[in-house]
Amino acid sequence: MSQAELFGAGDASGCVFCRVVSGETPAAVVLDDEVAIAFLDHRPLFAGHCLLVPRAHHETLADLPAGQVGPLFGRARRLARAVEQATEAQGSFIAINNRISQSVPHLHVHIVPRRQGDGLKGFFWPRQKYASAEAMEQLRARIAAAVAG
Amino acid sequence: MSQAELFGAGDASGCVFCRVVSGETPAAVVLDDEVAIAFLDHRPLFAGHCLLVPRAHHETLADLPAGQVGPLFGRARRLARAVEQATEAQGSFIAINNRISQSVPHLHVHIVPRRQGDGLKGFFWPRQKYASAEAMEQLRARIAAAVAG
Repeated sequence: MSQAELFGAGDASGCVFCRVVSGETPAAVVLDDEVAIAFLDHRPLFAGHCLLVPRAHHETLADLPAGQVGPLFGRARRLARAVEQATEAQGSFIAINNRISQSVPHLHVHIVPRRQGDGLKGFFWPRQKYASAEAMEQLRARIAAAVAG
Repeated sequence: MSQAELFGAGDASGCVFCRVVSGETPAAVVLDDEVAIAFLDHRPLFAGHCLLVPRAHHETLADLPAGQVGPLFGRARRLARAVEQATEAQGSFIAINNRISQSVPHLHVHIVPRRQGDGLKGFFWPRQKYASAEAMEQLRARIAAAVAG
């Protein structure tokens, strides 16, 4: 099977990111190969914020065929390094919103350069607590069963 | 090369997550195999928030050997499905903090169940704008060069 057959090309009618993949919509592209395309988000959290998008239209990570996971995240790893290097950042934030908070229903990986004191801290707070050890164990067992099943 | 040789085991002295990998520190484990371990965060954003950790000690995604990227994110994909299913969530949030905002310097993937109106929106705002098209193009070229290089 050729790379093109394996990975396909964006063609979901009306999808903003498929139009970037096809070249119909211009974008500030930083990576473009048979697996994925990456470009600058035009409304970045910080300058250098990139979106990495598989060429084929899949809505969420769960929808991405298993064989495409390694190729896509190999590129996320490469891009994290490149964004940090090019923006002289101290770190990076990598994120995927599946359905909720997902502005475009075509899987995309956010790669955002980070610096100490950059003010980006809102998301990971406030944290909560489990009501009881039993409640936590019950949920653990449910998730473990869903992973195994 | 055996799976154990390929993926190793946590052994970085004093690392909290290596102690979970070795079994020294108990955790609410939902997945445990030759590649990775995943467990409930004890201070979740929402109940069901899991951390997925490679068995071997690597600090960031960029440090993870290329051959381990696919296996780790294949498990992230499986876990995203499982967490959504077990918590009856509508979506999920997957995130990695590389160095900045990284509480434990052992690569970990956050997998968080999401629901409409759950209040988790802080991180992706406020967005910024590039000062000019030239500034954006300059940065695009720098990142593209770093990706290629």
